[in-house]
This record gives sequence, C-alpha cells and structure tokens, in this order.
Amino acid sequence: MSWHATCLTLFPGMFPGPLGESLAGRALRDRIWRLEARDIRTHGLGRHRTVDDTPFGGGAGMVMRPDVVDAAIAEAMPEGDARPLIYLTPRGRLLDQPLVRELSAGPGVVLLCGRYEGVDQRVIEHRAMQEVSLGDFVLSGGEMAALTLLDACVRLLPGVMGAAESGVEESHSAGLLEYPHYTRPAEWQGRAVPPVLLSGHHAEVARWRRGEMEAATRERRPDLWTRHLVAREGAAA
Amino acid sequence: MSWHATCLTLFPGMFPGPLGESLAGRALRDRIWRLEARDIRTHGLGRHRTVDDTPFGGGAGMVMRPDVVDAAIAEAMPEGDARPLIYLTPRGRLLDQPLVRELSAGPGVVLLCGRYEGVDQRVIEHRAMQEVSLGDFVLSGGEMAALTLLDACVRLLPGVMGAAESGVEESHSAGLLEYPHYTRPAEWQGRAVPPVLLSGHHAEVARWRRGEMEAATRERRPDLWTRHLVAREGAAA
Repeated sequence: MSWHATCLTLFPGMFPGPLGESLAGRALRDRIWRLEARDIRTHGLGRHRTVDDTPFGGGAGMVMRPDVVDAAIAEAMPEGDARPLIYLTPRGRLLDQPLVRELSAGPGVVLLCGRYEGVDQRVIEHRAMQEVSLGDFVLSGGEMAALTLLDACVRLLPGVMGAAESGVEESHSAGLLEYPHYTRPAEWQGRAVPPVLLSGHHAEVARWRRGEMEAATRERRPDLWTRHLVAREGAAA
Repeated sequence: MSWHATCLTLFPGMFPGPLGESLAGRALRDRIWRLEARDIRTHGLGRHRTVDDTPFGGGAGMVMRPDVVDAAIAEAMPEGDARPLIYLTPRGRLLDQPLVRELSAGPGVVLLCGRYEGVDQRVIEHRAMQEVSLGDFVLSGGEMAALTLLDACVRLLPGVMGAAESGVEESHSAGLLEYPHYTRPAEWQGRAVPPVLLSGHHAEVARWRRGEMEAATRERRPDLWTRHLVAREGAAA
C-alpha cells in the first residue's frame, strides 16, 4: 500500500507540478506514494458550478460554501478512510518537522486547499479538520502550502532518499539550526575553510559544529533558542 | 518594467509549475511579472557538470560548490542589478508578510535554491545573501520555498488581485489570526451562522470578529499573541 495523498482544489492542474520532478517525482513513478488532485468545482452548484458566496456580516472577498466543500470531502474519503483531513490555512498550527514525521508515518493525507477568504467555518468543525499553516504570510490559495507539505512528507518515506539527501534531518531533530557547510575548493576567493574541518579530529569537528548550531540559533532565531534552553533545563532537572 | 524573478536551481523544470495557473499565471501572461529559471548545472565542472562535493569535516550528504554557485549568480545578475539575492535555507530568518510586502514593492528577486545539504558558506558570505526560511521543516530543496515566496509576492503586485482575493491582507496586518468565515446557506447540517453576522449591526459585527481574532490567536498561536500584547503595551505607553 503506497502512501496516498489527495488534494481537494479548484486548480487540479497545479498538481503534481514540481512534485513530478526530482526525488518526489521518481518516488511517484516508483509508486512509493500516489497523488490524486480532485476538482472541488465538480461539486459546485447550478449551471455555473458555483463554489463560493459572499460572507455573512459583510467584508471583501468570497467564502467557499460548506455544502460544496463537504460534498467534495465525502467523495474523496470513503467510509473508513483513516487519513487525516488537513485544511491549509493561516489560522492553523504551524507546520513543523514533528508533524511532517507523524504524517509521513501514517497512511497518507487529504489536503483541502482554500481559495479567496477561506472555507465556511461550519464544515471545518463538522469534519473536525486539522488546521495547518505554513507561516505568517498570505498565499493566493492553499495549493502551494499543500505542495510544500507533501514535499516534506514524501522525502521521509522509505526508499525515497539516497545518501546525498539523507543528512539534513539530524540537526533539525535537535531543535537547532544547522551548522554551515564547506566543500572544495579548500581556498576560494581568498576565503579558507575553517581549519578545524581539515584537522581530522572528529570530536573537535563535532564540537565546532555544535557551537555553530548554537550560535546561529541564538542570533537568528531567538524563539527556537528559548525553546531549546527550556527543553535543556527540563532534561537536566 | 515588470517585477523580475530569477530562480537559480538544479530543477528548472519545476518553474513556473503552479505559478503558471490562477492569479500568478494570468499575471505572468499579462507581463505584470516575469520569471526566469536558470539551471545551475550549466556552470558545473568537467564532463559530468559536477555541482557538489563531499563536506569538509565529514558527514552525510553533499554540499554545493562555491565556485559553481558563484558563476551562476554572476551570469544571472549583471553589474548594477538592484534585486535582493535570497538563499532559501532553514538557517534563514522566517518568511513573513512584512518581508513579502518589502520584496513585492521592489524590482524583483533572485532566489537561490539549494539541494542536498546546502551551499558552501563562503559564497553565501561573499555575495552577502539574505537567508530566508519557510519554516521549521526540511524540504527536498529550495524550489518549493521559492515558489511559495513568489506566490506570496506576486499576489501583491498592482493589478494582480481582483475583489474576490483582496480582503485577506487586513487581518494579517494586525498581527492576529483571521476571524472565521461564514456564507450561505444560513443553516447547514443543523449548524447556524452566528446570529450577530445576520444582525446588520456593523459595529457589533466588527466587535465580534475582533474578539474571534483575539481568541483564535491566544489559543492557537501563543507566540503571536505575546508579540501582539507587547506591541499593544508599547503603543499605549
């Protein structure tokens, strides 16, 4: 049974898009995962297949109707479908690597991609959707967030990553930013590689890298650094 | 002069991908913006057009060579190109709406998409790249992050958004999550729209929505809520 992703969207032509290439594309051809994009508009109402209407209470933009969205979900998820139903929205919890790991360890995902102002709140509650956000910025719709979430999940499926792609996970697991990377040439534009990396002392390399991870996290992401310190306190107590 | 995006990538076939459809695709055809995807491999070394090598200091994976990446940048950015050069990496500052606004108000962007473990640190420093992260998760490469960043920027370019897409900005500007949306039918699956939204009292609707924004932010994103409270304190002082 391959990992099964279904995207509910008004733009099925956006899929697989970039996921048809590189790692994810090869894994798709190898049937390590499969991807269905389903057009919500096929459940639209009337001659114009209307999917949205103006918001109650006024305001700019349009809202996707609960009945239309619900019909699309009902068709995509037969009784007993155990996959999580995720609505991609800036109101959701932030996507992070623990959630990526959890999703990639399961049977797959159903991703609802909103457009316009979003989806009627009642269908979100009725279907007990998990709301997930990519970050604190506004996209033209949920599709790009869905593609990004799938890219992150698919690379963790067994058989997808080769040796060239396999290392990155470690540093993220520590809750710290990665250390900087260096490769040939050893000297370039008058800039030398840090000598410790050429020393052959594994313990010193590891210590240097750990120091760089901590320094980068402290300077660039005080939010992560605080969380790291709290976790370390907890572990020490 | 249209807004000009250049992506440096090992997978130029991923572009425009989903940006060829919907709002961004129409704006591309209307020449509101233009997109170039340049293959870093054309600057690779030797018969195999090698772009990467093993990391100094050991470890899994491969690192993109500074000389190869620099040559790709030199060709893509002629002397005097005023566009910011952004490297998409989990070590970067988080993408947020203020950065999106800043970028979309400028002449365009040059986006470097890393693969494998990333890019040699020296070329990042030599070119004074701005490092930007989509969030705390690991992607197969920078391409999906580049597409996402471009989607967020392009929708803000003058002439791209119509009335149906124009409202979302407001709530994000307040540093709070959006309020929930409701549309027809007024009753669905035994669930009624909150009565205040049908009342016609604009001030009460606004008050209700503000309360929902605050409640959602407090419950779902304590990090944003804390920042909001600090900003409010500062404004009151």
